[in-house]
Amino acid sequence: MRFDVLTLFPDTIRQLCDFSIIKRACNEKYIEINTVNPRDFSKDKHKKVDDTPYGGGAGMLLSCQPYLDALKSVEKFDNSRTIIMSPQGKTFNQQMAKEFSKSSQIIIICGHYEGFDERIIEKSEAEEISIGDFVLTGGEIPALCIIDSVTRLLNGVLGDDTSKENDSHYDGLLEHPHYTKPRNYEGLEVPEILLSGDHEKIKEWRRLEQFLVTRKKRPDLFEKFMNSELSKYDKKIIEKNLRLF
Amino acid sequence: MRFDVLTLFPDTIRQLCDFSIIKRACNEKYIEINTVNPRDFSKDKHKKVDDTPYGGGAGMLLSCQPYLDALKSVEKFDNSRTIIMSPQGKTFNQQMAKEFSKSSQIIIICGHYEGFDERIIEKSEAEEISIGDFVLTGGEIPALCIIDSVTRLLNGVLGDDTSKENDSHYDGLLEHPHYTKPRNYEGLEVPEILLSGDHEKIKEWRRLEQFLVTRKKRPDLFEKFMNSELSKYDKKIIEKNLRLF
Repeated sequence: MRFDVLTLFPDTIRQLCDFSIIKRACNEKYIEINTVNPRDFSKDKHKKVDDTPYGGGAGMLLSCQPYLDALKSVEKFDNSRTIIMSPQGKTFNQQMAKEFSKSSQIIIICGHYEGFDERIIEKSEAEEISIGDFVLTGGEIPALCIIDSVTRLLNGVLGDDTSKENDSHYDGLLEHPHYTKPRNYEGLEVPEILLSGDHEKIKEWRRLEQFLVTRKKRPDLFEKFMNSELSKYDKKIIEKNLRLF
Repeated sequence: MRFDVLTLFPDTIRQLCDFSIIKRACNEKYIEINTVNPRDFSKDKHKKVDDTPYGGGAGMLLSCQPYLDALKSVEKFDNSRTIIMSPQGKTFNQQMAKEFSKSSQIIIICGHYEGFDERIIEKSEAEEISIGDFVLTGGEIPALCIIDSVTRLLNGVLGDDTSKENDSHYDGLLEHPHYTKPRNYEGLEVPEILLSGDHEKIKEWRRLEQFLVTRKKRPDLFEKFMNSELSKYDKKIIEKNLRLF
């Protein structure tokens, strides 16, 4: 998969991508990350990319010409999608990460400081995506969230394919708790069942814990899950443990 | 404000923080970022920080001893808070960013890959915080989201204090659209009103656009806003434009 990132901070994106899974995925050619700097496309003699807002107000706005010309310069693959990082966008989630991972190319437009001239959003026909209801200085960190979450879903990137299915949010539930050595850490014991060697029971306990943890920490997700079509296995676990719900 | 980041990738955190607002805020001493590597605290002779999960399953888990000893080593300020990045946490938002910005210190525990032994969460008494319903390789990028969003709210960090109040999510609404030069970009015009010079009308138009944009793009936020206590000014605008709602 190819990521093309439009940013005024190409060095930052390159540095940000130089670690952990993203780095490995680049080295092993699962992904390729290309940066495009709108400043290089500015027709202003001082290479300006922003200007004051019409109607007054604080701060500067990113101008149409450098951003839209930079976007035009990006070679578009089949099955490509263009997104623009914006706090006004649709909230990114694991379902979208899964969908994005089926594309061959994601073009990500990053703003910085005050935001875009509205016509950049209109003309680019990009999907506006937000990573959450909070405000950051620019789109670079959100872009990195998208790149990381999508990359780790690509086949082969994570060594072990089962680890994705145990992720929080994989099927709309949070993860069950995990324990490793020692059995007793300063008075806190590992739950007995995990030491039993009974794989069927352990599987059931973990699934039940997923339900209980999600209900406690994210009742909104739990409600959505309970309103979805439950598997026979899940129904059985819930019926067996009704007193806990 | 001081950030202490517990991470197996201290270089990454330092690099990630070496740009834009965060860098400037460090240079101008608004914030200080300190990293602590749990690996340096491992009592294992190979400096191991993870181990296999009890009960079986893929992947490795971060162990109690190195993480909790690393946490103990951090000098705690008055008015400090400790958070642990986790997809199971409370979802971070602008309201939390505002609250966090009142602390003198934020200690951020970052996991990587499979996750924490549950007892790290229990013993650390850290607040579990998630930046959204998606899964990343580690807590480093989320930590950066927290650092960036909180830092830009600190007094003095952004040059112009009004720019924060125009942010999306500042009062639960999205931003109004912005326009800069040229007046006509490839057929798309700047709305007339913004060229009128009538500041009262422009203010009203922008507020109305905030309502309309939020209602269209994030009906959940709009509903919440309409159920909150509205100012006289907002009520007047809504009543005047009822046909648009």
